[in-house]
Amino acid sequence: MAKKSVRDALRLDEVDLSTLDPAGRPVGPKNKKEAAEDMAATGAELDGLQEALYAENSRAVLLVLQGMDTSGKGGVVRHVLGLVNPQGVRIASFKKPTAAELRHHYLWRIRKVLPEKGRLGAFDRSHYEDVLVPKVERLITAAELRTRYKEINTFERELAESGITLVKCFLHISPEVQKERLLARLDDPKKNWKYNPADIDVRSKWSKYQDAYTQALKNCRDTPWYAIPADRKWYRNWAVSRLLLETLQEMDPKFPPPGYDLEAEKARLINNDPLR
Amino acid sequence: MAKKSVRDALRLDEVDLSTLDPAGRPVGPKNKKEAAEDMAATGAELDGLQEALYAENSRAVLLVLQGMDTSGKGGVVRHVLGLVNPQGVRIASFKKPTAAELRHHYLWRIRKVLPEKGRLGAFDRSHYEDVLVPKVERLITAAELRTRYKEINTFERELAESGITLVKCFLHISPEVQKERLLARLDDPKKNWKYNPADIDVRSKWSKYQDAYTQALKNCRDTPWYAIPADRKWYRNWAVSRLLLETLQEMDPKFPPPGYDLEAEKARLINNDPLR
Repeated sequence: MAKKSVRDALRLDEVDLSTLDPAGRPVGPKNKKEAAEDMAATGAELDGLQEALYAENSRAVLLVLQGMDTSGKGGVVRHVLGLVNPQGVRIASFKKPTAAELRHHYLWRIRKVLPEKGRLGAFDRSHYEDVLVPKVERLITAAELRTRYKEINTFERELAESGITLVKCFLHISPEVQKERLLARLDDPKKNWKYNPADIDVRSKWSKYQDAYTQALKNCRDTPWYAIPADRKWYRNWAVSRLLLETLQEMDPKFPPPGYDLEAEKARLINNDPLR
Repeated sequence: MAKKSVRDALRLDEVDLSTLDPAGRPVGPKNKKEAAEDMAATGAELDGLQEALYAENSRAVLLVLQGMDTSGKGGVVRHVLGLVNPQGVRIASFKKPTAAELRHHYLWRIRKVLPEKGRLGAFDRSHYEDVLVPKVERLITAAELRTRYKEINTFERELAESGITLVKCFLHISPEVQKERLLARLDDPKKNWKYNPADIDVRSKWSKYQDAYTQALKNCRDTPWYAIPADRKWYRNWAVSRLLLETLQEMDPKFPPPGYDLEAEKARLINNDPLR
């Protein structure tokens, strides 16, 4: 099968968000049913690869999820990370920095929760918040922002060198779909807790955020970004699951050979079993 | 339906491991198929309850898994914790203490990874290792051991007071089934990494470990223990999933009411939408 890789199809080369359709399906299934079937197969393969990654115990994967409110960062965690053994998963979410966190460099809280070797980590928001909010809210100067872009590129190169493969996803939704999803949070008592009045303040700065994202994606792409059309939840989940799958396929983790004498151990267990 | 609760059926009252059948099915389904159906239903309900627990954000659950090698602690994590949203799960596993950990009280490393409010935590091994290995290996005196039992009871009461509900499971397997499972790890190249020659040294002290477990379960049951027959994987997974379900049902977490004016927010979004 000469399928085009999902990574090639979704990798952001030219960063022009205005040309990216949040409801697009540039690659892969055209409907929910097909996507569900594909995800089931992906899940099984992902699970096996993740176990090998865990057993190999030398490298890690880190999924970075960024996107406007309701773009589905939590949904990806639930539906994509939910495909594999929770033992090997490390999820961290980053809210507004606490007072304690603010007394450190902004990468401090990020470094603290990097996935250990063998793990599949996921960041629900990340260090990119520190080049988005401060830019929109004018909390730092243009020079400071440029420094941060550089620091982030360096930091991400450092991660690669330490064996952590990044999969950076920008979940791209339209303001119309965000509105629907915010309304759903207001309409469903089981979702009220997910809504925060401040979400509308952020929403009101939509174009400023799109600009901040554009600059962040443009300036921090020594490690590539993937743009995920996120107006359709099923497409978004499918796309991220495939990006992870292709990443792990390429990494090709191997179950390690036994660090002991197989036959001798079998003999101990069968012939000299202390409990026989 | 006047089903007997699984908690009542599996709670350890008299701690006499010799009377507990590791292949028993004292309650619930008699075969794998029935168990799978029941677990699918349990999974859906558990997922909803866990989301409410997360939203409520005031209490937590901590599943403590103890048992001999191959008793299925990892299997429970995979198959039971895998039923819910990984976002709300916190898994910690405790290996042989490191040099750094040994420079602290044995509860230090445990306290560090307690689940935060709203989370469903799971410990793959736990503070109980510190009253098992040291007893079998005679690393501490009888008086020190008694002190630890007391400390553990106090610690667990403290957890309850801080809103963490413990579900302590002893996964009970037979030495025959352990042998089969260790052999399977030696026979399957994808499982070799799970095998450690030291497992046989521990196995050779089977009755000493059963005795150490008996003492630990007897002396530390201010918070109850559940004995899980673990020779059948499907029964083990079913039983733990039901214990968690019943625990969460009793806790009855509630989605919190909105901390804002619902109608006002709807109006902001519909009538005064800044992006309209």
